[in-house]
Amino acid sequence: MKIIKKPSALQKNIEKLRLEGKIIGVVPTMGYLHEGHLSLLRIARKKCDVLVLTIFVNPTQFGKGEDLDRYPRDFKRDLSLARKEKVDFVFYPSVNDMYPNSYQTYVINKVISKKLEGEFRPTHFEGVTTVVAKLFNIVKPHIAVFGQKDYQQAQIIKSMVKDLNFDVKIILAPIIRESDGLAMSSRNVYLSLSERNEALALNKSLLLAEDLIKKGERNCKLIIQKMKNFISKNKSIKIDYIKVADLSLSQYLKELKNNTTCVILLAARVGNTRLIDNKIIKIGSK
Amino acid sequence: MKIIKKPSALQKNIEKLRLEGKIIGVVPTMGYLHEGHLSLLRIARKKCDVLVLTIFVNPTQFGKGEDLDRYPRDFKRDLSLARKEKVDFVFYPSVNDMYPNSYQTYVINKVISKKLEGEFRPTHFEGVTTVVAKLFNIVKPHIAVFGQKDYQQAQIIKSMVKDLNFDVKIILAPIIRESDGLAMSSRNVYLSLSERNEALALNKSLLLAEDLIKKGERNCKLIIQKMKNFISKNKSIKIDYIKVADLSLSQYLKELKNNTTCVILLAARVGNTRLIDNKIIKIGSK
Repeated sequence: MKIIKKPSALQKNIEKLRLEGKIIGVVPTMGYLHEGHLSLLRIARKKCDVLVLTIFVNPTQFGKGEDLDRYPRDFKRDLSLARKEKVDFVFYPSVNDMYPNSYQTYVINKVISKKLEGEFRPTHFEGVTTVVAKLFNIVKPHIAVFGQKDYQQAQIIKSMVKDLNFDVKIILAPIIRESDGLAMSSRNVYLSLSERNEALALNKSLLLAEDLIKKGERNCKLIIQKMKNFISKNKSIKIDYIKVADLSLSQYLKELKNNTTCVILLAARVGNTRLIDNKIIKIGSK
Repeated sequence: MKIIKKPSALQKNIEKLRLEGKIIGVVPTMGYLHEGHLSLLRIARKKCDVLVLTIFVNPTQFGKGEDLDRYPRDFKRDLSLARKEKVDFVFYPSVNDMYPNSYQTYVINKVISKKLEGEFRPTHFEGVTTVVAKLFNIVKPHIAVFGQKDYQQAQIIKSMVKDLNFDVKIILAPIIRESDGLAMSSRNVYLSLSERNEALALNKSLLLAEDLIKKGERNCKLIIQKMKNFISKNKSIKIDYIKVADLSLSQYLKELKNNTTCVILLAARVGNTRLIDNKIIKIGSK
């Protein structure tokens, strides 16, 4: 496993491997790896010859007052986990190598980035699309694996790939949850014991919605209201949003249609920790 | 020479050629080729195995009320000229294939795009960087040749390549001028005979500035004032700007320093036709 810090050095290595006909796969992360990240590495490992893990706590996707400085980091532990997943390259650039002083170019999604997370973190996705575009140009991957936990991010990246004609296949990997159902996130370490316990209501509310839909409920306002009622029993949780949307996030849904698929997305602050979760739900016939 | 309209078809062709070790060169244009474009093709032809000419009148780089609809087009003539320059692929996409209905991702320069042209055409460079990023991902070139006539555009693209880590070498090709000195432009066809004649003052004012600098003038305000006085003798010309800047366009200059290089840039409307021109000037010792 090679650890590479300089963008141009990785790019040269990869270009050589591409010329040899190797299939390149990438899993972009901010490090502090958990089972969710490892599941992405395992999926990518099966589909490529050369597996690249990128670890970069990207400052441009944090807003003012967000948790950039206290975002958890443990590079040594990440390396040992990466070795176990048979990663070939770890790309670990410095902020200055990614954003030198003269930096001035940004990749911006102007539509679906404005919704959901975009209403609460207005500059977040601009940072995401910019850094992922950079990583795609540095790593030159054939495939890239992203987690469904960041569903909106994955859709925005899919749009970017299609719109800007990146020759990269995006794979969306399922959410990995703790045994009690909490979606895995590097930010879960911020939670106190009691917050950790209350946070379970988020996943449970999605299961509740799924159950309601299975039983024939089609009115999204009602589904959302019942989710809110359920979550609000937990005093330390403040809901930012709960929305039902089509899979491309092009519109919020009011009424579910039989034999379609929707996604329910939510964000909430549990104490000082902001968590997101979502569930893709296939709607049967009544 | 192959003519390809579908982005994905060209991308597949090129990817195959890259795997064979071929060096790919691209010259992006809006068509209606003149000697300026042909000079770019000749420079690229010498440096690559596979030469791609792109012809696309890119709607996103035209502002409201600009000349998108009347922009001159002559595809058949362009093809015959391309054949003479031994172009391998002509990429000639439709607007719908480049910007389908769901389109939502833009590449934006936030610094030097605001100056000069950006003050008069505020959405122009966003269209340029977006389409060039798309073309780079479709054509996957090793080298790309741009003309110095659009100096600010070339600097913005160089910034984009550096910032977003595109593995593309940008070559800046000298301005090609008519025998009387007018910088070649597809828009020159808009000029009436008398406007065509008055337009010569633009290049002549740049030569005047060069001469002043050669004779020891170092005060940019004075140089610009003399250029304005010279141009303003022509009644059909309205100057949008004349600026002296460092080569990266990071700052306008007030005082020239010996043994440095500057660029003087100007834009003017000649009747209803907006023209730009510039000159890179090496400053000697007094």
